[in-house]
Amino acid sequence: MSLIVQKFGGTSVADTDHIRKVARRVVDTLEAGHRVAVVVSAMSGETNRLVALAREVGGEQPDPREHDVLVSTGEQKTIALLAMAIQGLGHPARSFLGSQIGMRTDTAHTRARIHSIDPRPILDVIETGGVPVIAGFQGIDEAGNITTLGRGGSDTSAVAIAVAIEADDCEIYTDVDGVFTTDPNLVPAARKLAGISYDEMIEMASLGAKVLQIRAVRFAMRYGVPLHVRSSFKPDEGTRVGREEEVMERLVVSGVTYNRDEAKIRMRGIKDLPGIAAKVFTPLSDAGIVVDMIIQNLSQDGTTDLTFTVPRDDYRRAVALAEEVGGELGATAVDRDEGIAKVSIVGLGMKDHAGVASRMFRVLADEGINIQLISTSEIKVSVVIEEKYTELAVRALHAEFLEEGATESTREA
Amino acid sequence: MSLIVQKFGGTSVADTDHIRKVARRVVDTLEAGHRVAVVVSAMSGETNRLVALAREVGGEQPDPREHDVLVSTGEQKTIALLAMAIQGLGHPARSFLGSQIGMRTDTAHTRARIHSIDPRPILDVIETGGVPVIAGFQGIDEAGNITTLGRGGSDTSAVAIAVAIEADDCEIYTDVDGVFTTDPNLVPAARKLAGISYDEMIEMASLGAKVLQIRAVRFAMRYGVPLHVRSSFKPDEGTRVGREEEVMERLVVSGVTYNRDEAKIRMRGIKDLPGIAAKVFTPLSDAGIVVDMIIQNLSQDGTTDLTFTVPRDDYRRAVALAEEVGGELGATAVDRDEGIAKVSIVGLGMKDHAGVASRMFRVLADEGINIQLISTSEIKVSVVIEEKYTELAVRALHAEFLEEGATESTREA
Repeated sequence: MSLIVQKFGGTSVADTDHIRKVARRVVDTLEAGHRVAVVVSAMSGETNRLVALAREVGGEQPDPREHDVLVSTGEQKTIALLAMAIQGLGHPARSFLGSQIGMRTDTAHTRARIHSIDPRPILDVIETGGVPVIAGFQGIDEAGNITTLGRGGSDTSAVAIAVAIEADDCEIYTDVDGVFTTDPNLVPAARKLAGISYDEMIEMASLGAKVLQIRAVRFAMRYGVPLHVRSSFKPDEGTRVGREEEVMERLVVSGVTYNRDEAKIRMRGIKDLPGIAAKVFTPLSDAGIVVDMIIQNLSQDGTTDLTFTVPRDDYRRAVALAEEVGGELGATAVDRDEGIAKVSIVGLGMKDHAGVASRMFRVLADEGINIQLISTSEIKVSVVIEEKYTELAVRALHAEFLEEGATESTREA
Repeated sequence: MSLIVQKFGGTSVADTDHIRKVARRVVDTLEAGHRVAVVVSAMSGETNRLVALAREVGGEQPDPREHDVLVSTGEQKTIALLAMAIQGLGHPARSFLGSQIGMRTDTAHTRARIHSIDPRPILDVIETGGVPVIAGFQGIDEAGNITTLGRGGSDTSAVAIAVAIEADDCEIYTDVDGVFTTDPNLVPAARKLAGISYDEMIEMASLGAKVLQIRAVRFAMRYGVPLHVRSSFKPDEGTRVGREEEVMERLVVSGVTYNRDEAKIRMRGIKDLPGIAAKVFTPLSDAGIVVDMIIQNLSQDGTTDLTFTVPRDDYRRAVALAEEVGGELGATAVDRDEGIAKVSIVGLGMKDHAGVASRMFRVLADEGINIQLISTSEIKVSVVIEEKYTELAVRALHAEFLEEGATESTREA
């Protein structure tokens, strides 16, 4: 008998039919002898509708405190409906708002961080045989104002609650079957991973796999909460996310990811003096623009080229800033390129296997794909390529590292 | 400079356009030098949508605690949006949930009664030049559960808040211009009353005029809070509701009301023994059915006829109970009649003017309308008639008592 946190995302509670199915799932778990605390998101589309309302009245930057009061109604609706649905199946259930489980956060409206949770109200319901149904995404600050954790914050709520009540497992239910070796829409041979480490999951999440919130994985890693990403609609096991030593399946490369949400800026002919990077990147950082990859290379004439990528949403602002700074630094040109993609391979096994990066480069070269930028970490290699080659690159890398016939050295049991 | 509570109902905040107009209205009041606390309902239709969702999942009797968690989101949306809109006009504003102003109620979910309010958070915002925007309809019980006050409860919230912060005035904004002498849809000559007493307003509200919640008027009367019912869409004065001595306009008859929501049951040939009424009405009361008018008359054969009216919604259940009890009491028949209407005249002046009732009966007789039941109080006379004569009766009574040419004795300055 385990104590399990089950978190259901927006598509899993999209309408009252789905909510009834989720209730069935929860009750099945109860009737299998487990104890369950449920965490839910807003019904899919609801948060977007509320944000749109806020913009209609409050413009592009609605008051953050009131924004949180507004959007937190989304989860409030779901908890009430799901509690009713579970009751309808003959089990006691009780909804909880963030405030009602003492989900204390800092005061950073729209992106608050969790400070503490009071496990008592949740455990009281569980101990009397009931199901607590908790609103994800929301909390309160010290003064009692409603706060929200930002997009995807419900995953983080679920992990934090699992920590607070010392749950054995934190199940994240979603509309996919688990974490895949790559995007199945792109590569039919993509397969579900049985297990993956926190570190790999974080790399894959930050590289574009959208199945789990990166903050939630970091939180889970910090407290050692085992995660289980699985489908709301199928009974099958999904993907377990845990410590490196707990991962059942250990591959050299666990996944191939891609991201088409970045754009590239190249500043040419800058005089190579100390402090150039700071001069270029401080204004971008001040403007809240997160720079991803950075490459600096010296030309033979003693000038330097600086190339970097930024999110496409921030591209125009970044170009304007780069041109301004470029002028000051004597840059001869500022080139722009929105037609790029970042393709990455991720895998814990890279730590122990040399030559993975060079195999990746060879595969891309064999396909005639030019590599524009490279960045690496202990467990991933990312390259920037021309956007039109994204599918080709992903398929080739997946075939090389993850499909039957991939060479022996790339796989371990 | 006054301290004013302004309450805006669902049609006044129907969409974001309306919410912006309400914000303008609030700001105009501020800029005229007053201090304002705002109380709002859910956007019109929202509560019905939420109740429908609850039924989809929870059936006809959804769990009342979860019902309240669900429907209270309606007002929460409005307060956030209206606070944003007021901010957009350059004035600070801050939303408050019931829980955030210590709106303590009993635990009677879906129809809770207010125990106390903490005026401090509201006054803190007002004293720093801001506008508190408070969710009507909702509160919390001692244990911190969300409660709701029942349909129309926002009026009651507004009055209670006016009491708590010692406001000079409580303005109830609605989609009509004020309280009318009768339904203007029925009688084009109907006119807006400048003033009306609490007692008259309560009679008119309970008799079918839907402009103000009866509970709110009782609450206002108890604490002497002056009410002002007025239009959200026009700047004109509406109708002031206050103590008898404060009412500017004093008419013998202030209004003609009608109600088609009742049905009539007649039990014939009951043996006339003591305790019959208790035997008949106790089961109805136990079933939560509110009986309105009751007439008992002795037949010449020593049996008794008992006639009474109940809300049409409870009609079938009431008939079943009456038939059961009728059998026990030896009733010879139980007649039913859903085709009735109750028409009433209300006016403080009746206290001092004899003959108002008989004038009413004569007017109806002149129109050939048969009176089935009569009930009277100090300030009203109600009759039950055949439903098809409703409009005719209302028009004739309005002409008699409230239009130009009505005899001198019916009007006083």
